[in-house]
Amino acid sequence: MKEITGGVCAAQGFRAAGIHVGVKTHNVNKKDLALIVSDVDCAAAAVFTTNVVKAAPIHVTKAHLTDGKARAVIANSGNANACAPQGEENAQRMCAAAAAAIGCKAEDVLVCSTGVIGQTIKINVIEEGVPKLYPLLERSEAASDAAAHAIMTTDTVKKEAAVETTVGGKTVRMGGIAKGSGMIHPNMGTMLCFLTTDCAISPEMIHEALLETAKVSFNRISVDGDTSTNDTCLVLANGLAGNAEITEKNDDYYAFLDALKTLCVKLARMMAKDGEGAKHLITCTVTGARDEAQAETIAKSVISSTLTKAAIFGCDANWGRVLCAMGYSGEQFDPEKVDVAFASSVGTISVCEKGRGLDFDEDLAKKILTEDEVTIAITMGEGSGSCTCWGCDITYDYIKINGDYRT
Amino acid sequence: MKEITGGVCAAQGFRAAGIHVGVKTHNVNKKDLALIVSDVDCAAAAVFTTNVVKAAPIHVTKAHLTDGKARAVIANSGNANACAPQGEENAQRMCAAAAAAIGCKAEDVLVCSTGVIGQTIKINVIEEGVPKLYPLLERSEAASDAAAHAIMTTDTVKKEAAVETTVGGKTVRMGGIAKGSGMIHPNMGTMLCFLTTDCAISPEMIHEALLETAKVSFNRISVDGDTSTNDTCLVLANGLAGNAEITEKNDDYYAFLDALKTLCVKLARMMAKDGEGAKHLITCTVTGARDEAQAETIAKSVISSTLTKAAIFGCDANWGRVLCAMGYSGEQFDPEKVDVAFASSVGTISVCEKGRGLDFDEDLAKKILTEDEVTIAITMGEGSGSCTCWGCDITYDYIKINGDYRT
Repeated sequence: MKEITGGVCAAQGFRAAGIHVGVKTHNVNKKDLALIVSDVDCAAAAVFTTNVVKAAPIHVTKAHLTDGKARAVIANSGNANACAPQGEENAQRMCAAAAAAIGCKAEDVLVCSTGVIGQTIKINVIEEGVPKLYPLLERSEAASDAAAHAIMTTDTVKKEAAVETTVGGKTVRMGGIAKGSGMIHPNMGTMLCFLTTDCAISPEMIHEALLETAKVSFNRISVDGDTSTNDTCLVLANGLAGNAEITEKNDDYYAFLDALKTLCVKLARMMAKDGEGAKHLITCTVTGARDEAQAETIAKSVISSTLTKAAIFGCDANWGRVLCAMGYSGEQFDPEKVDVAFASSVGTISVCEKGRGLDFDEDLAKKILTEDEVTIAITMGEGSGSCTCWGCDITYDYIKINGDYRT
Repeated sequence: MKEITGGVCAAQGFRAAGIHVGVKTHNVNKKDLALIVSDVDCAAAAVFTTNVVKAAPIHVTKAHLTDGKARAVIANSGNANACAPQGEENAQRMCAAAAAAIGCKAEDVLVCSTGVIGQTIKINVIEEGVPKLYPLLERSEAASDAAAHAIMTTDTVKKEAAVETTVGGKTVRMGGIAKGSGMIHPNMGTMLCFLTTDCAISPEMIHEALLETAKVSFNRISVDGDTSTNDTCLVLANGLAGNAEITEKNDDYYAFLDALKTLCVKLARMMAKDGEGAKHLITCTVTGARDEAQAETIAKSVISSTLTKAAIFGCDANWGRVLCAMGYSGEQFDPEKVDVAFASSVGTISVCEKGRGLDFDEDLAKKILTEDEVTIAITMGEGSGSCTCWGCDITYDYIKINGDYRT
């Protein structure tokens, strides 16, 4: 397996484009409509937000996926089309507009929206935009880049990645674009992620692979604990790599799954790192837990703790807050077996052993925590379960971005 | 029932004092040791943090309450005595020092600490401080004020309240001091609350009344979702009001309970309003829920939503975040029956009806949300359950306070 370029266009037979059509009214330089199209029909699958309040595009995309097939994805930023008048009707109209341009059925188009909740989406500017967007479709790095930009909201950097692997003796490529930032939480939080692959795989197996992958990637990140009405992760597989179609959990499946996990962990980390206003990517590793489930609950509690996030923002080795967050995670454990260390590329420093504070070098700790990417390493002495989760610090900019997002 | 002054000294037979002894090293003007003493033995009860990681004073106070009796409370700020070397030994020594001054058994003294986790508490300065503190004990407003200040950490205002009511034909007084600020969450979060009353009530009944009261007051506030290792709410009842002792759930019990709830809701609201860096007290009322439990889960989810808190900081009527927070609360409900309004002393504005956004006057909404105390009013159309919870907004100052608390 190796990293490659090309994002959502890395795999054979996928073209993309992204432009500004006017859903975002503040800045005409901000792209707001993306289209991704496969040359041929794809096996397709998706995972969605667990929020009870679901945006209209989610209902439409779900319906369009009942046959496990799709050709294209249309997505806009600037308006979430959630709790908004004519929501489903407008989501359907987005699919119809894309289908008319592509020459496929509206049922083969999937749709996503992200942005402000509760306002009617400007369906006219989208319908007028699609005929301008369609001719720009191409399979190139620039095209993936344009699509990645068109789904950004408060994201400060585009999220894009791709990998190449071998499945059944054939070279298989897969890539994706994503948007994240605020509201990211375990179980999907205003994130969109569009994955494409030329692997031949059945709808059942691609769905299974996506579920398994989401569990260890997107569901292990948190920005602010809010989960959104629109989160969606889609995957399209068009089979152009020419491998024997994967229809069961054989070696080919696991080779594919392995690459998909690598790709999605990369994208998930990018989302956590670009959490709204974030200055630090925080990785929390828990080892020595009773089992993986306990390790995951505890790691998530630590990366979700507002006080821990504020301490990391301040480069303050306040490990008491780490223990505290472990303690209210809901898991039972013996605090007197817990060790905590902080680490980054500068080095590692132990700060707590068997639940008691160590005398440590505060200057070194500060230096370690000043790096962009820091790790909170917890060992529990309870068993052999382990888990890694990703989050980010909370900063003045988070408050600024979210204090006046809507107006 | 009526509000009175005097705080923790409002009830007959209670004296208090608070001074600086040196646990807080940064500023000699900041009081850090408090003592509250009853002239006679009291029925006593407490509720504690649900955090698995519990500070040493909690273990000691629990042990000292096994007989349901107490005479005094000693408390310090500046160091939490949690995850710290010699924790229980030092908590015991705090009780012993107070007992020696008072002339009672160490087992009749309750102890609390709040502050930094993981550092050895300066037991010497406390032991040397008690003989200076004891002679200052008096029953006065100033004494309650001094004790209230001595338990503050990042609190910006002291929390103190008292009420007077009639129980069994006798005038009964009760009052309290509290500290809160960060880490406040349903189920106790770095809050300390010391309540005193001259009501005659059995240890069993005072414990029951405290549990019932905490559920609808302290457990319905949230600042940042972190719960601490030290949270404790204590009540001492010395019987000097001369009423017939309450030993069962009769009319006297309910008169007492009513006053206790009023007192504790007042203190809880003060804590929420003084959340670290907070500019707004947010009250969330949920009506029309299936039952009270559903109403409470949903109200807590809304006041705990970082995105909603940031919107209120920005005086932004972003009701989509309210619906979103309801949606990920874990409760099932029909979003298309939900109405949302914002209110304050300026007026009320409906922003969402039956799950859809209304065209509303943005200027009026801004004016309403600019007030110190704002209400998010949710009606659900599911049944007759209702609940009120309190929280605060998240601000630049929250990040500032918590980014460098320890050093």
